[in-house]
Amino acid sequence: MQPRGIHHLGVAVDDLDAAVATYERLFGALVEHRDRVPAQGVEAASLRVGEGRVELLASLGEETPVGKFLAKRGPGMHHVAFEVSDLRSSLAELEREGAELIDPEPREGLFGLQVAFVHPDSAHGVLAELVSDAR
Amino acid sequence: MQPRGIHHLGVAVDDLDAAVATYERLFGALVEHRDRVPAQGVEAASLRVGEGRVELLASLGEETPVGKFLAKRGPGMHHVAFEVSDLRSSLAELEREGAELIDPEPREGLFGLQVAFVHPDSAHGVLAELVSDAR
Repeated sequence: MQPRGIHHLGVAVDDLDAAVATYERLFGALVEHRDRVPAQGVEAASLRVGEGRVELLASLGEETPVGKFLAKRGPGMHHVAFEVSDLRSSLAELEREGAELIDPEPREGLFGLQVAFVHPDSAHGVLAELVSDAR
Repeated sequence: MQPRGIHHLGVAVDDLDAAVATYERLFGALVEHRDRVPAQGVEAASLRVGEGRVELLASLGEETPVGKFLAKRGPGMHHVAFEVSDLRSSLAELEREGAELIDPEPREGLFGLQVAFVHPDSAHGVLAELVSDAR
């Protein structure tokens, strides 16, 4: 697999409005998308920081994945997303290499992205997401 | 401040050789630098992942910053570095905005970079690094 690069850094936050304001103020971030996605248990904002991107994730409840993460670890970096051109073939390649896939098939992620997550046990503690961004 | 983008994602690992091999195998990473820096208590590898960059950090001892991080949190994402064109003026701007700076002045980081860290309390739990990359 040859990812194009880092699509975004996912960050779990307690207070989305406050976090967006902080990233705008300190790091010149610009909000490109913001959405509440009950099916995934998050309210999220996608920010551009120069050519980079940070996705801020607030939980919609303690039993959601992000809610559990926040309860266990507190706010902070949650995942890194690598952009790939062909998500399905990248997943097949990871499977051949023995990586543990949380999503063996592409699924719809936030903001219209096609995504799949790789288990942190396969990447030295890092929750990695593969993203196909056809937007 | 208007960063150019994400310079790299810093990841703390237990075993640098194994982690480099995993990133090469799963994510097509290419090693661009590797160095042992006793003054900073780390052995580190800078990897290109497409146009992105991941910095893997192994500790040279339990009392080093990365060693303490690993003891407390285990392997995983450690910091995110934003690239700026003028590090000194970016730090002055952050200071005016009330951010808590770990390094109020630029200092030499890994691989010849000029760097300064911002305390995670100022960025919702994220340890942020500003990097000026004149390489």
